[in-house]
Amino acid sequence: MTPSLRIRRAVLADLPALVALLADDALGAARERPGDPRYAAAFAAIDRDPNQLLAVALGDAGEPIGCLQLSFIPGLSRRGAWRGQIESVRIAASHRGGGLGRQMFDWAIQECRSRGCGLMQLTTDKARPDAMRFYERLGFKASHEGMKLDLGEHPAG
Amino acid sequence: MTPSLRIRRAVLADLPALVALLADDALGAARERPGDPRYAAAFAAIDRDPNQLLAVALGDAGEPIGCLQLSFIPGLSRRGAWRGQIESVRIAASHRGGGLGRQMFDWAIQECRSRGCGLMQLTTDKARPDAMRFYERLGFKASHEGMKLDLGEHPAG
Repeated sequence: MTPSLRIRRAVLADLPALVALLADDALGAARERPGDPRYAAAFAAIDRDPNQLLAVALGDAGEPIGCLQLSFIPGLSRRGAWRGQIESVRIAASHRGGGLGRQMFDWAIQECRSRGCGLMQLTTDKARPDAMRFYERLGFKASHEGMKLDLGEHPAG
Repeated sequence: MTPSLRIRRAVLADLPALVALLADDALGAARERPGDPRYAAAFAAIDRDPNQLLAVALGDAGEPIGCLQLSFIPGLSRRGAWRGQIESVRIAASHRGGGLGRQMFDWAIQECRSRGCGLMQLTTDKARPDAMRFYERLGFKASHEGMKLDLGEHPAG
């Protein structure tokens, strides 16, 4: 455990570090392009949406060492339950395996409870079997198929 | 094909029919409770969120025969791509197998393109193998595990 762990809402100054976290990943390396101006547009869209919460975990020196995005989604299903969805979970290579992921998820689950969510959900690439086992230890059940349809290049801004 | 098919944004007057569609389902029957006041609160939350689009497909007499919810989710991953997420897809028992699902998805994919999404995503219960095959025919790939964590009873309102 890291008693000094702090997690807070991301601010624009965190953006380069967040993009670096996304790119420093076996799958992300091929998908991300640090410096692309679309990241700033995406950050602004997340930041102005009250149902999005991009969070950053900070190391001892205040540097970003992890991130995740929570989306709070209203819906009719399950008697009108809100869903808390987790996306873009990343932990700096230097901090993996030390319990940080667990602390970040404990924080995220508490955020979802405080927003009145009845359910949390995420999808994890089948190419990440370790991630799936981590989520199962947290109580997540792999009850669903996570299906994606690539729509091709998206526009700038 | 049904040349007269119309799909439009749901309005509050559609709510009882939408809840009935959700409940008229092998999995939904156990999860839904028509008449629960939380449905109206959920409808209001969806309706006021510009990144949510609850859509209803109408039959020849203007009656709801299908529904789906689109959530437009901004994110940093994949160079700042917006995701279009589909949830709560249901088709009235009387209209299944007639191509309505395909028409509703064609409409949804077009909506996501028009909003600039780079990716569409959904999760489908592994207890619905027919649904998975339907999504695969549309081009979706089951590349991910869809994981859920039940947070228990959610509060009213």
